[in-house]
Amino acid sequence: MPRPTTELETFAGDITAASGFLAAGGTCGLKVSGRRDIGAIISERPATAAGTFTRNKVTAAPVLVCRGVLGRSKERAQAIVFNSGNANAATGEQGMANARSMQRLFAEGPGRAYGIDAEAVFVASTGVIGVQMDMEKLARGIAALEPSTDGGATAVEAMMTTDTVPKTAAARFAVHGKPVTVAGMAKGAAMIAPQMVPHATMLAFVGTDAAVEAGYLQRTLTAAVEDSFNMIVIDGDMSTNDTCLLLANGAAWPEGRDPLDGSQPECAQFEAAVSSVCGRLAQAMARDGEGASKFIEVRIEGAATAGDARMIARAIAGSNLTKSAVLGADPNWGRIACAAGYSGAELNPSLFDIGIGSIQLVKGGLAVNYDEGAASSEMKGNEVLLSMHLHLGDGEATAWGCDLTPEYVRLNSEYTT
Amino acid sequence: MPRPTTELETFAGDITAASGFLAAGGTCGLKVSGRRDIGAIISERPATAAGTFTRNKVTAAPVLVCRGVLGRSKERAQAIVFNSGNANAATGEQGMANARSMQRLFAEGPGRAYGIDAEAVFVASTGVIGVQMDMEKLARGIAALEPSTDGGATAVEAMMTTDTVPKTAAARFAVHGKPVTVAGMAKGAAMIAPQMVPHATMLAFVGTDAAVEAGYLQRTLTAAVEDSFNMIVIDGDMSTNDTCLLLANGAAWPEGRDPLDGSQPECAQFEAAVSSVCGRLAQAMARDGEGASKFIEVRIEGAATAGDARMIARAIAGSNLTKSAVLGADPNWGRIACAAGYSGAELNPSLFDIGIGSIQLVKGGLAVNYDEGAASSEMKGNEVLLSMHLHLGDGEATAWGCDLTPEYVRLNSEYTT
Repeated sequence: MPRPTTELETFAGDITAASGFLAAGGTCGLKVSGRRDIGAIISERPATAAGTFTRNKVTAAPVLVCRGVLGRSKERAQAIVFNSGNANAATGEQGMANARSMQRLFAEGPGRAYGIDAEAVFVASTGVIGVQMDMEKLARGIAALEPSTDGGATAVEAMMTTDTVPKTAAARFAVHGKPVTVAGMAKGAAMIAPQMVPHATMLAFVGTDAAVEAGYLQRTLTAAVEDSFNMIVIDGDMSTNDTCLLLANGAAWPEGRDPLDGSQPECAQFEAAVSSVCGRLAQAMARDGEGASKFIEVRIEGAATAGDARMIARAIAGSNLTKSAVLGADPNWGRIACAAGYSGAELNPSLFDIGIGSIQLVKGGLAVNYDEGAASSEMKGNEVLLSMHLHLGDGEATAWGCDLTPEYVRLNSEYTT
Repeated sequence: MPRPTTELETFAGDITAASGFLAAGGTCGLKVSGRRDIGAIISERPATAAGTFTRNKVTAAPVLVCRGVLGRSKERAQAIVFNSGNANAATGEQGMANARSMQRLFAEGPGRAYGIDAEAVFVASTGVIGVQMDMEKLARGIAALEPSTDGGATAVEAMMTTDTVPKTAAARFAVHGKPVTVAGMAKGAAMIAPQMVPHATMLAFVGTDAAVEAGYLQRTLTAAVEDSFNMIVIDGDMSTNDTCLLLANGAAWPEGRDPLDGSQPECAQFEAAVSSVCGRLAQAMARDGEGASKFIEVRIEGAATAGDARMIARAIAGSNLTKSAVLGADPNWGRIACAAGYSGAELNPSLFDIGIGSIQLVKGGLAVNYDEGAASSEMKGNEVLLSMHLHLGDGEATAWGCDLTPEYVRLNSEYTT
């Protein structure tokens, strides 16, 4: 990650913290709970756009629609319409027609005042798989949306499924004395796994009022996602619907300056801002993992490569046995070593070190004479740090996850029924 | 699998059901519970041997010792000494020395009467990782073992960790009117995952009184393991210690006949017998998954290749969300489709069918008008069948697993402490 030349200011703020972005959330009845389930984001002016999506081969209709929007309209994207309560996945041609209807309903409804073309509207859905959307409810819900600079909070609520807290993050830096903002919102609790190949689906929408060339925007997002959303592991399942979108509308960009394309000195700050927002949203998802009682951070150093470090970090964060041990504050480091061993990464069993919090448990592959009570104490808070040094190279990575709890099992055995 | 030309008789029986095999189990104090924790199997005469082992890179010392025995003594193997309560994994050079001591202690103790060389003794361990073996206890325990044809039951108990039932299986066929037996015993509950890359470790010891050439013995075992132990998924974690051994001592082989080498007509029955024993031991492990309340069978047909079928079957059987849905008798087939979608296998979202028990839920990628109550009823027993047809080719596979329960989480959060 490039180091910003001036300080990056991070703050709490949803996507409307970036100039020219409006949002709204409403209720249309897709959720039986009667909670908010329909929302939208508008950029007042056309924006460049970038996206990363699930690699699940059972790809939800809205993901296919988003890919089409990116292909045709990445220089003039202008809105995201989204719903919770139904994933519109495994819904065939009807599902595709319904996702396209969502674009049109939004363009002809709330988007009309902004001259938004249906082709410029991204679509995202999260909820149950394999059930057709109730388009009557959706049509009424979309028509009633009134995006505004005050609508961020209701929009975030409309994304939530089993999430217990809304997730937002923002960062700001200055370009020639003028503040430029990157801000986003996300949801995601269960069925979160790495590789954008994560049903409670991960959705993240990020906006910036910087002016950014589309190719560079995509490269920046791809790199940020690799070290953030792709490094959270909640249950190892991977959704049909994961979507991360980044829109850059230039609303705060100094007049006459070229859009960022990777060559300008401000790019370092911009990349740091996108990384910061994505990283904080990703960590917020791991903290809010379904049924989770503890947040787990897994730090890997000394792997043969950065890719190896990612594989090991994700294997440890994803191990049911490690997650169960964290729940019980059990410093059973053998489970950590075991997960590293099957991660597929290069590993020398006589070199690695393992730590829990500030306590070193293993050196050179062997247990040191550590205080088991102290190690257990390091696991009793609601944040647990697991670390491993491979002593093979310079590869580093950090993954985030959560403990596995009886509550997770209960939540997921009652999902549709 | 070759179809046997005459009938294969399957029956309940531990490894001593095969002629010339003796077994014993005892107590040496490695388990704090005071249950049996040390055991051995002897072949009265030298046997050919085959083995498959974990691919975890944190390979336990006994696995390394077994590989050495296979390399040097696969034509004259004669015993397996094993313990539960300590995995002797991540124990470095001291661990290797201790595993070798187990060979020597057995050869000089109970093996002495049979002229067993230390180099002909396999070693297997299961239990906690990262703690050195208490060799005083082990030495006393090994010395006290008295293998006999009546010792199978105590030997199986000595393998068990969180297993709730002993697991044995046997099969018999006739060669020129003379019965030839394949019989085995296994343990394994949690941390079971495919690829022999499965802490409650999977151990399986199979013996046959057929005479079998070592190369063909290994090919037969490798093929049988691929469709049995490698197709069980309990928690997706993969042990440092998994070991499957097959010994063929020829004790029931008709005098003057060549050992089986793959060319004889009896090979089909032999392969079927090994497959049957391995398959039943594997299913018994899945039925006894830690904290499990239900056995899950996942049958895949019509995949592009057999390898793809295996990937899909294992992804579904391993999905925490699918396992949780089975616990709740929730016919949430979207989780099945989702797991297939991220399995890595080829998949056409508009072709696949999904069934639960006898109820078809999905045809051509879309939900059919099924009775949700009936589908849920199919999941309320203690055996649940999930099936998927990809309509892409002839690839078939079956995987076995179990539901995910709050009890699993409880068990694994209390393991060492």
